Amino acid sequence: MELFALADVPEIREGGDLAAVVEERVDLRADDVLCVASTVVSKAEGRTVDLDDVTASDRARAIAQRLEDVTGEAKDPRFAQVVLDESTDLVTEAPFLLTETHFGHVTVNAGIDRSNVPEADLLLLPEDPSGSAARLHEELGVPVVVTDTCGRPFRHGQRGVTIGWAGMSASRDWRGETDRDGRELGVTVESVVDELAAASNLLTGEGDGGTPLVVVRGFEFGDHDGSDNLFREYDDDLIRQALQAWEFPG
Amino acid sequence: MELFALADVPEIREGGDLAAVVEERVDLRADDVLCVASTVVSKAEGRTVDLDDVTASDRARAIAQRLEDVTGEAKDPRFAQVVLDESTDLVTEAPFLLTETHFGHVTVNAGIDRSNVPEADLLLLPEDPSGSAARLHEELGVPVVVTDTCGRPFRHGQRGVTIGWAGMSASRDWRGETDRDGRELGVTVESVVDELAAASNLLTGEGDGGTPLVVVRGFEFGDHDGSDNLFREYDDDLIRQALQAWEFPG
Ligand SMILES: Nc1nc2c(ncn2[C@@H]2O[C@H](COP(=O)(O)OP(=O)(O)O)[C@@H](O)[C@H]2O)c(=O)[nH]1
Ligand SMILES: Nc1nc2c(ncn2[C@@H]2O[C@H](COP(=O)(O)OP(=O)(O)O)[C@@H](O)[C@H]2O)c(=O)[nH]1
Ligand SMILES: [Mn+2]
Ligand SMILES: [Mn+2]
Ligand SMILES: [Mn+2]
Ligand SMILES: [Mn+2]
Repeated sequence: MELFALADVPEIREGGDLAAVVEERVDLRADDVLCVASTVVSKAEGRTVDLDDVTASDRARAIAQRLEDVTGEAKDPRFAQVVLDESTDLVTEAPFLLTETHFGHVTVNAGIDRSNVPEADLLLLPEDPSGSAARLHEELGVPVVVTDTCGRPFRHGQRGVTIGWAGMSASRDWRGETDRDGRELGVTVESVVDELAAASNLLTGEGDGGTPLVVVRGFEFGDHDGSDNLFREYDDDLIRQALQAWEFPG
Repeated sequence: MELFALADVPEIREGGDLAAVVEERVDLRADDVLCVASTVVSKAEGRTVDLDDVTASDRARAIAQRLEDVTGEAKDPRFAQVVLDESTDLVTEAPFLLTETHFGHVTVNAGIDRSNVPEADLLLLPEDPSGSAARLHEELGVPVVVTDTCGRPFRHGQRGVTIGWAGMSASRDWRGETDRDGRELGVTVESVVDELAAASNLLTGEGDGGTPLVVVRGFEFGDHDGSDNLFREYDDDLIRQALQAWEFPG
């Protein structure tokens, strides 16, 4: 299996044709998966926001005030408003704002970025990342995953995850398969799209590298059932229920 | 960047020499990282347990009974005892047993496996995975990461993570670096060992593939500061605090 980042990718602007950018730089093969950093998908889709265009509700003001009290850092109520607008559910309000996005992804600040966004204050995640992936998949013919970098419980640091995918299953389902001794497997559902996103992030990086497009060549899904059930629903997510029942003691 | 699994790896038994197994199969290069599934490290280190050798304490019996009541599945109190023995702290007791291992990793059932373990009931994680990685690193000369497959909050399915590493930093620290427009970065600490573990898991798989050893060739850490701070401490882990304050309502 081989991974390479596409070179000389231009600055992506609203209306930018990502499929053309890819096709001009690589002859994709049938065994390729294209990994695309969500930041360039969002830019192409014009998902920028200027804070001057936002009016904070009382709710957003209260959230920002609480965050400011708890962290000791100034918080813009308009930023909290944009996070609320991008979210269907709040998981924690303090000491950080952890929410569920409209497409089911639980992440801090609804995944809104302030880096690598010229000409605007904020960059939202794509509205429907799997829809974006599907359009690219249709044009390019290979499986596409749209990635973001985000944190996770229990461990420091961030890593690449998938927020949208098309042309392949999100997970390999190992149920019904057996180990080397014929026993049932403990691990049953392997989220290969997240493993692909993590792998590609090693090349994408987080800074000014200019490498939002990574090809994974020669990944073999293998002869497994697939599953597209990636984001847990509230009723099926005990950690989220625990977090929502909890009150930050600060 | 290229990844390949070593072929024809034998069954690893207690006392097995993993470094020799690697050296017989590949000429490692200076730009290689060796990813090793913890299961074969544990086997080589004799980390097997037979339930007949375990006596369950009252605490373990109570935990197993609660799990049985909540899940409707029979739970062996001796298994709960082994999990307790491998853990320094319980995060949740129901509906699943989420604990912190002696080396700081938070995972279900202290990462104890029942798959791919011939001749014993259970396989524990290595006692000190970074110590195991350090010994392999010393013998082989390249960075080594020891991986496991485990679940995560908010998302279905499991993916590869690193539980021990040597010869490289756990994370790239992007603090002080800037984005394409000279702005401060939002993402500051990228856990590259977890991204390497996820990548290698795409080749390792979860079943009878017999591919516990994966070489990542040509990964570039780049000119970044490094950090080895991977596992969150209790005081620095709000999600764990929330989970411990919570009581499963079942
Ligand atoms: N060529 C190019 N690279 C970009 C552009 N925007 C971001 N990048 C690069 O894309 C990669 C990922 O950026 P990041 O901010 O981490 O995106 P995210 O993980 O999707 O939120 C980095 O290598 C950036 O330098 C762009 O418009 N053009
Ligand atoms: N060759 C060989 N492969 C093994 C052995 N034990 C496990 N495996 C393989 O190692 C890989 C990882 O196994 P898994 O049970 O998922 O390990 P874990 O993720 O470290 O808990 C799979 O491809 C197994 O078939 C062994 O003793 N020899
Ligand atoms: Mn982002
Ligand atoms: Mn990123
Ligand atoms: Mn395991
Ligand atoms: Mn595994």
